[in-house]
Amino acid sequence: MDEIKLIEVKEDILSDNDEAARKLRDKLRRDRCFAVNLMSSPGAGKTSLLLKTIAALKEEFKIGIIEADIDSMVDAEKIRETGVTAVQLRTAGFCHLDAAMVKTGLEGLGSESFDLVFIENVGNLVCPAEFDTGAIKNAMILSVPEGDDKPLKYPLMFTRADVLLVNKIDMMELSDFDPAALKQRVQSLNPGMPTFEISAKTGRGIALWTDWIRRETKVFA
Amino acid sequence: MDEIKLIEVKEDILSDNDEAARKLRDKLRRDRCFAVNLMSSPGAGKTSLLLKTIAALKEEFKIGIIEADIDSMVDAEKIRETGVTAVQLRTAGFCHLDAAMVKTGLEGLGSESFDLVFIENVGNLVCPAEFDTGAIKNAMILSVPEGDDKPLKYPLMFTRADVLLVNKIDMMELSDFDPAALKQRVQSLNPGMPTFEISAKTGRGIALWTDWIRRETKVFA
Repeated sequence: MDEIKLIEVKEDILSDNDEAARKLRDKLRRDRCFAVNLMSSPGAGKTSLLLKTIAALKEEFKIGIIEADIDSMVDAEKIRETGVTAVQLRTAGFCHLDAAMVKTGLEGLGSESFDLVFIENVGNLVCPAEFDTGAIKNAMILSVPEGDDKPLKYPLMFTRADVLLVNKIDMMELSDFDPAALKQRVQSLNPGMPTFEISAKTGRGIALWTDWIRRETKVFA
Repeated sequence: MDEIKLIEVKEDILSDNDEAARKLRDKLRRDRCFAVNLMSSPGAGKTSLLLKTIAALKEEFKIGIIEADIDSMVDAEKIRETGVTAVQLRTAGFCHLDAAMVKTGLEGLGSESFDLVFIENVGNLVCPAEFDTGAIKNAMILSVPEGDDKPLKYPLMFTRADVLLVNKIDMMELSDFDPAALKQRVQSLNPGMPTFEISAKTGRGIALWTDWIRRETKVFA
């Protein structure tokens, strides 16, 4: 089993992030590496989703994981237990990932040899939406306890996402979450965005997400 | 009932935020205005807590509310229904409040005539912790579904808070949240910080919080 590689990253404020992201995406396409940028609030279930995703797909894909955290390596340690290779980016107070940081993470991972890479962004609905990481797709998790009004408050995140996972549906009965209200708000920001109700805890709906990955990687390859 | 005042705010990157925050805090002290900066992840329950707090304290205190959101006025509209005066700061994509924005909000409110003001910061565990708003106290909400590992990942927020509210304890049985693990992590970052378990939904524990406000405002006055 690989050791976790820890990489300290800093924002390169002089570089043009959009240009760096475009170049990185081109390289990922050439390498046939389907990289997914995973964004959510703190505690919405990014790592839990990755653990279920790895369990479902690790026989079909060579999977690599880039973890980002301001501090600590708890997520990367959980990932390592699955046997999948992970690198940990420590952002030192920084609130989002940019393309230069992701490039560093992909180099740390050796992305050429992976066909599916998940980039776990910093838990934050604001800043990560503003910076193109260079990933092929953006996935967003909204967890039921956060509420159905989040598209009203964080519209850019819902606009930038290519797929939305509504997690913790096992907590639906304890909340006043209205799936129809969410759907209407999401569709008005991002018409046609695939949206899957899941529970990373119980495994419910995970197949909808992994099937989406299979379809998207087929088109991509 | 007052109309909601909507104020567009921008970051003043040329000003010294720490100095502006000190001046603002001095003014709040002179005005005997106990201003509390309320921070949390998206959907952790800031507005729900404020609604319960207003219901409990509005006969004892002249309360004003400053709402901050990137977009939308849904929170300020909920506050308005209580009859309490609210202003809405729209941060136009900005991920936190600074002292200049809060000063603008307090001026919009007319803070001299309020003895208790709550500033609902942008839902974000990263950036708001880095900027002193000038408030008298910082309160933080962590909601049970977010998990007990958040102090490991967002240590600055837990360090900056003067009081921690653990919300959504009604969801405890559906989660693997470990209150003892949280307590140990919080106390190692911020020894002695008062921590109250609450449910802004059921009202459980709200009296612990309102009693804390009564004690702190007594010392302050």
